[in-house]
Amino acid sequence: MIRRDPPSKAERLRSGLYGDECLIASGAYDGLGAALVEQERFDAIWSSSLALSASRRLPDASLLTMTDYLEAAVHMNSAASLPVIADCDTGFGNALNVAHAVHEFESAGIAAICIEDKVFPKLNSFIAVTQHLLPADEFAHKIATAKAAQRTSDFVVIARTEALITGAGMDEALRRLNLYADAGADAVLIHSKAPTPHEVVEFCARWQRPVPVVVVPTTYYTWSVEQAREAGVSLVIYANHTLRATVQVLSEVLREIREAGSSAGIEERIASMSDIFTLQRLDEWMALEK
Amino acid sequence: MIRRDPPSKAERLRSGLYGDECLIASGAYDGLGAALVEQERFDAIWSSSLALSASRRLPDASLLTMTDYLEAAVHMNSAASLPVIADCDTGFGNALNVAHAVHEFESAGIAAICIEDKVFPKLNSFIAVTQHLLPADEFAHKIATAKAAQRTSDFVVIARTEALITGAGMDEALRRLNLYADAGADAVLIHSKAPTPHEVVEFCARWQRPVPVVVVPTTYYTWSVEQAREAGVSLVIYANHTLRATVQVLSEVLREIREAGSSAGIEERIASMSDIFTLQRLDEWMALEK
Amino acid sequence: MIRRDPPSKAERLRSGLYGDECLIASGAYDGLGAALVEQERFDAIWSSSLALSASRRLPDASLLTMTDYLEAAVHMNSAASLPVIADCDTGFGNALNVAHAVHEFESAGIAAICIEDKVFPKLNSFIAVTQHLLPADEFAHKIATAKAAQRTSDFVVIARTEALITGAGMDEALRRLNLYADAGADAVLIHSKAPTPHEVVEFCARWQRPVPVVVVPTTYYTWSVEQAREAGVSLVIYANHTLRATVQVLSEVLREIREAGSSAGIEERIASMSDIFTLQRLDEWMALEK
Amino acid sequence: MIRRDPPSKAERLRSGLYGDECLIASGAYDGLGAALVEQERFDAIWSSSLALSASRRLPDASLLTMTDYLEAAVHMNSAASLPVIADCDTGFGNALNVAHAVHEFESAGIAAICIEDKVFPKLNSFIAVTQHLLPADEFAHKIATAKAAQRTSDFVVIARTEALITGAGMDEALRRLNLYADAGADAVLIHSKAPTPHEVVEFCARWQRPVPVVVVPTTYYTWSVEQAREAGVSLVIYANHTLRATVQVLSEVLREIREAGSSAGIEERIASMSDIFTLQRLDEWMALEK
Repeated sequence: MIRRDPPSKAERLRSGLYGDECLIASGAYDGLGAALVEQERFDAIWSSSLALSASRRLPDASLLTMTDYLEAAVHMNSAASLPVIADCDTGFGNALNVAHAVHEFESAGIAAICIEDKVFPKLNSFIAVTQHLLPADEFAHKIATAKAAQRTSDFVVIARTEALITGAGMDEALRRLNLYADAGADAVLIHSKAPTPHEVVEFCARWQRPVPVVVVPTTYYTWSVEQAREAGVSLVIYANHTLRATVQVLSEVLREIREAGSSAGIEERIASMSDIFTLQRLDEWMALEK
Repeated sequence: MIRRDPPSKAERLRSGLYGDECLIASGAYDGLGAALVEQERFDAIWSSSLALSASRRLPDASLLTMTDYLEAAVHMNSAASLPVIADCDTGFGNALNVAHAVHEFESAGIAAICIEDKVFPKLNSFIAVTQHLLPADEFAHKIATAKAAQRTSDFVVIARTEALITGAGMDEALRRLNLYADAGADAVLIHSKAPTPHEVVEFCARWQRPVPVVVVPTTYYTWSVEQAREAGVSLVIYANHTLRATVQVLSEVLREIREAGSSAGIEERIASMSDIFTLQRLDEWMALEK
Repeated sequence: MIRRDPPSKAERLRSGLYGDECLIASGAYDGLGAALVEQERFDAIWSSSLALSASRRLPDASLLTMTDYLEAAVHMNSAASLPVIADCDTGFGNALNVAHAVHEFESAGIAAICIEDKVFPKLNSFIAVTQHLLPADEFAHKIATAKAAQRTSDFVVIARTEALITGAGMDEALRRLNLYADAGADAVLIHSKAPTPHEVVEFCARWQRPVPVVVVPTTYYTWSVEQAREAGVSLVIYANHTLRATVQVLSEVLREIREAGSSAGIEERIASMSDIFTLQRLDEWMALEK
Repeated sequence: MIRRDPPSKAERLRSGLYGDECLIASGAYDGLGAALVEQERFDAIWSSSLALSASRRLPDASLLTMTDYLEAAVHMNSAASLPVIADCDTGFGNALNVAHAVHEFESAGIAAICIEDKVFPKLNSFIAVTQHLLPADEFAHKIATAKAAQRTSDFVVIARTEALITGAGMDEALRRLNLYADAGADAVLIHSKAPTPHEVVEFCARWQRPVPVVVVPTTYYTWSVEQAREAGVSLVIYANHTLRATVQVLSEVLREIREAGSSAGIEERIASMSDIFTLQRLDEWMALEK
């Protein structure tokens, strides 16, 4: 039978990562955010662990489960035509937990997962505590197990090192990501919390493999996508800005309603009901009913 | 055995509705919104059907299921100490569907549900189509079934009429809400999409029963909580403002990141990582670990 | 790019339905049942609405939601390599609800859904009450909407008529299934509760279209798969036997444990722990850890 | 306000554990099993980790998540009036994961959780591999955290030691369970895989505290509930028999249908449709509709 169906999201993401452009992704944590990330023409959606935790008012400390992450990723995946990259923290336990996660995310049509080399349960990388790395070979085994577990050819596994976050240094970061690439990682994420891009710039200069590089410029936010592209980065992720914008605006509008005793003062600054209906694609759905 | 546990959320909501004050609630659709509604000192959380649909990028057309609504309400309930009032549309089908929903929401610790007298599947009340009312006695039967199904004494069932929305008029609205109160409704919601409060003001003047009145001033937003209190209203719900504020701000910040190729321009206007950690109550959780 | 991935479950089911053999499916309601249906070499898994309701101790009366059905189907789909046919009752509401269900089941990798032409909310066909049919053109519209909503080429939509169940007669059954086939149904299910196969035999003799026929021999169980094949049936579903066997055996073993005050009397008649580990594919999982 | 509502399930379980009788529980993994456990007059339902894993065809290796366990426990809790004791393995990670689980299970109305002192991720105790114990003080910290996290007075936390399973010996089992009782455990579970009850008999003789003792006679199944009561046991759990009976009967009936090409040969040995409707409490639900 001739294949009539369009390329999968995983296939599209993989092509993009291995292409000449630098992709840009935004964090989201629900279908609404995913829809707006698509509307503003980003290339992919980052299902953010920090944001998912915050959306339940829980710390980013491995309290939410694989099931919680999967459900959220599925909601985002349904709400937008963009590929979803699921931030899966440390992979939810050991290598078997990673394999199970791969089965579940892949079956659900999620394009990619990203796992990091900290010890389970993890704490968010921007929390000022001592962070612990898993031995590199154990994490490489997780990556190899993930790749062995996947059943379709295009599913993407991203390996993230926290070596710079924990203070283990650049040589260790390079050693680790090389090991993970050897184990089959489809892309590597070098995470840095430096206030400038010097760490990721150095990393890119020293990374000699064809495996694509991913960055998350939360702290070194003056570095632009264009500069990242020139440095050889394949994907820039704005991981937590939708979350942070939402928290800010909700605090403000709720306070104003509460203090004024009405919503009159904010009506001009919020989307109209009609905007909401447009976002929900009401007209398309009503047309189906004809 | 002497009861040592604090009053349930249903008990607190019921006391508030039957007290002298006018309560104020805000719509939310996830734990994050619920947390911020609590932080800004509202009295209750409205789990909004419109917002839940939008959070999945689906029209407010009875596509999301009772299971979806329940899960979202549970997340909000866990994230805040406020009672949650679950907007349950038409009750998900007939009277048996209502009974099942009551069992599930009540068991999950949700304080209240609100159901409305339109035909299932419904469309959002602000969509410009002909809306259809269920015969009044059929809806009264739903209310009676809901009250018969509940197992604890304090669970709250709110009956909402769409008589004004569908153009059936004030006499019909009064006739219906009286029937629903006769059937056991714990509170009545009079829904209006008039641009001024004249409809709800007239309703309040003509409502002679001790059953509390609830309003949703989406269109007549200049009417304040204080004015509502004077008119005899027991609960004012700002149903969709958190949703609308979120859509607006996300469109803006995502566009700015996309156009600038970096997040530098928005960093000042969004919550900091530290604000997020505070919201997640990170310190309290870290203290548990000691 | 050359396609390297194996055919989808939908593709395999479609090929089977349009082939020369008569497929055989068994009902299941969880991954365990699905695994055993596969182990005993059936061709497909029927995610049974009756069984799903019973697994929650709820009547088969449209109380469980699309979300509940979807989750169960996903669990079965993950647990076995067979295609899952999801019994979706009346489609959860109107044509928009059907479209939404198609989106969700198809995205989740479910091979097929089956919807029936009763009014929502429905009652199980074997309950002795008056059953109500939806007008035929309304149901044909549901089928057409389902086919318009699907995004991949192989997803299967089965149209089931309850005309014989409601007493509307054979001519009406034929008229309806022809309409549904015109609307795009990939297969038709003729449901009968007669104690002998005479109804389905007559139907098969009069069905002149290349659209495959599906039967559910709950009451006319002496009719064999071989006889069905000769009559032109493409799929026979043993819908509720796993449920009924489970209820019987659990009542018995629990009673014996309770009465004897120990499990000694039943140990010989139940699977061993080792059997359970085999079913769980423990060895394969342990090998992954090496 | 005078309390009008009946005692909670947690309150009833607690009373039973601290009373003179020996309670008897059966494992289950869905609402159907829970309903039958209630029908046969057991005292409580054990939400079994092994059975839950098997119901998804996954090994009992910490692959299912807290979210999966919680949902299953909620389904059982809704389907029966008995208290549910949720087998929570090692508590899903560290002490924070335990605290989060307590919040979630308690809020959902589950009466009790049981956690064990193995390392996360765990493997089933009857699998012939080396099993690893968590240091006793770390597990005691988990118990203390669980008790600090609970918000109602009656929620029950059971501490289970695997000291006998891992070969650490009886003295270590006693030392550990004393530590856990010191940390606030409401009951202790002494797990043994000996083919005779000699280990649990010795334990009971040496256990001097008023904290109730729980046993799971999977291997020493000739020991009766009456004998256990005389030894001082407060709760006997038949953890996996419903699972094992189901696997056996499903294999048999599916094979017979497949081989015979019809269900005629098994109809006499399985529950009737009418039995199913009774279990679903169809008459009660239909009465609600009047």
